[in-house]
Amino acid sequence: MSNVNRQFRLAARPVGRVKASDFTFHEEPVPTPGPNQALVRNTYLSLDPTNRVWMSELDGYLPPVAIGEVMRGITLGEVVASNRSDFAVGDKVTGLLGWQDYAVIGEKGLPTKLAPVPLPDATLLGVLGGTGLTAYFGLLEIGKPKAGETVVVSAAAGAVGSIVGQLAKIHGCRVVGLAGTREKCELLVNELGFDVAINYKDADWKKQLRAACPKGIDIDFENVGGEILDAIVPMLNLRARIVLCGLISTYNADKPVPGPNLGPVLVKRARIEGFIILDYVPRFAEGAMQLAKWVMEGKLKHRDTIVEGLENAPSALNMLFDGKNVGKLLVKIA
Amino acid sequence: MSNVNRQFRLAARPVGRVKASDFTFHEEPVPTPGPNQALVRNTYLSLDPTNRVWMSELDGYLPPVAIGEVMRGITLGEVVASNRSDFAVGDKVTGLLGWQDYAVIGEKGLPTKLAPVPLPDATLLGVLGGTGLTAYFGLLEIGKPKAGETVVVSAAAGAVGSIVGQLAKIHGCRVVGLAGTREKCELLVNELGFDVAINYKDADWKKQLRAACPKGIDIDFENVGGEILDAIVPMLNLRARIVLCGLISTYNADKPVPGPNLGPVLVKRARIEGFIILDYVPRFAEGAMQLAKWVMEGKLKHRDTIVEGLENAPSALNMLFDGKNVGKLLVKIA
Repeated sequence: MSNVNRQFRLAARPVGRVKASDFTFHEEPVPTPGPNQALVRNTYLSLDPTNRVWMSELDGYLPPVAIGEVMRGITLGEVVASNRSDFAVGDKVTGLLGWQDYAVIGEKGLPTKLAPVPLPDATLLGVLGGTGLTAYFGLLEIGKPKAGETVVVSAAAGAVGSIVGQLAKIHGCRVVGLAGTREKCELLVNELGFDVAINYKDADWKKQLRAACPKGIDIDFENVGGEILDAIVPMLNLRARIVLCGLISTYNADKPVPGPNLGPVLVKRARIEGFIILDYVPRFAEGAMQLAKWVMEGKLKHRDTIVEGLENAPSALNMLFDGKNVGKLLVKIA
Repeated sequence: MSNVNRQFRLAARPVGRVKASDFTFHEEPVPTPGPNQALVRNTYLSLDPTNRVWMSELDGYLPPVAIGEVMRGITLGEVVASNRSDFAVGDKVTGLLGWQDYAVIGEKGLPTKLAPVPLPDATLLGVLGGTGLTAYFGLLEIGKPKAGETVVVSAAAGAVGSIVGQLAKIHGCRVVGLAGTREKCELLVNELGFDVAINYKDADWKKQLRAACPKGIDIDFENVGGEILDAIVPMLNLRARIVLCGLISTYNADKPVPGPNLGPVLVKRARIEGFIILDYVPRFAEGAMQLAKWVMEGKLKHRDTIVEGLENAPSALNMLFDGKNVGKLLVKIA
């Protein structure tokens, strides 16, 4: 066990893309847990589009990360020392433990202890973690898919989108994914079972989208916003649902980006509903067990993009905005 | 009884504002009802923002009015001849009987017979008709107001908005209305019981709106869209509801108008839901009885703007877009 705790702290609110200078790299002694505290060693850090929002001054569903504070992030870790009765050395946990090697727990926001499921750490943090749970509760609780409906997923080769599409297939839907490279599209159709995947960088992608949805769109699981959402809204069916999970195309903008024309939402009595996974914390165990079952049955596949080394976290975050990752983007810390 | 049936037929799809030349004025003999038909003499014509949408080529919740077809409109009328057992001479009816003196019924879309409520015809067509029912079902079924919540209503001095605000007060909400003149704002507060009314033509109306909603916005009953909706969305509370009833600011536009930035909808898990009153036809009697009760108890007031003469219908329609009417805009046909 190293005696140094490496940390990235927020140095500046980014303008546009995240830069290395928006963080300070900090080294301090590994902290010693006090009474009723435990020490967790982080092994994997999850990188998610919402991290970019946390760096801004927007007071969203969580407050902004303060300047000088350890950068907020979801990690998977292992308890390495404990003065608590509810956490034992060796327990695997996940929670908002930050961009750092070690975190002391016991003060606020206790992490969740992971059930002993025989799956790799990356799977535990991805499919069974916030990513898979976002797909699970967002699609099932907000989207409410019915067999035979057409589901469109944007950022379909991303961590959440790739799970959403497979869950929609499990529920008997026609699934159309939008992704940004031909390789991603091939993965979606050939390996993950999407009915159609469209490269939104093709000049005629809107035409392809219309052709792929001959009966219109019943559910849009929206991770992107912007031009993609603009193209989807006019294709909505009567009582269509837009699960508003993310708007990654807008997170680097320096002023509010307009949304889609709402005429079709009115006329089709459609619904746009915002969704944040934290509302479902009390049901995480239920969701994770169901997802684990599907993973072990081979019905739910996943891809991970793993970046080695905490020191690469700042540059890795931009991979999400450049479409460089496939599936879950993780940093292997230790 | 005149022997001439005056009609306005659609001559052209309007570009921007409606012009007289978008209609042809047509006179024909009063039709004679055939077997199983009845003849209705229209007395009042309801003018509604949605009429402008029906004139466009948009295939919305109803198909476009065909060029050459009698202009579609909701009227109040009286049966003057009948070969049907379910409609007797003297029955008051309301339905899509068009911009004309007389309509033959019995082929499709039978009108609704009005219950014998002791209220004036204009009240029957306005508050107890599509307008009041739109306010009633839109606010109660989509908005689901709870006592103590803050409700914002745009086009608040209009036919629907003025009823929505009063219904929200009946349900114990704080009600803030947006209207376009000082006189309308005074009416809303002094006569209709709104807590605050803001003239959106004031330079500082956005600041006034923020001051009027110190606890944020729980329900937005949206009739306008555009800049007004853009200002409302950033003020939405957790799980706020936008009842998307109309987008009058966009109906004269020649291309789709962008919607609001959806970031706050995501972060606040808010919901934007389109609403069309026709979905509630099976419950019209229920809604009309409740509205009639409140009117007769003096809890629900209404204003009407009545234009005399069918010949003035085309120019009167623009009053809706110019904010020239207060409350329900009606044309007195006979």
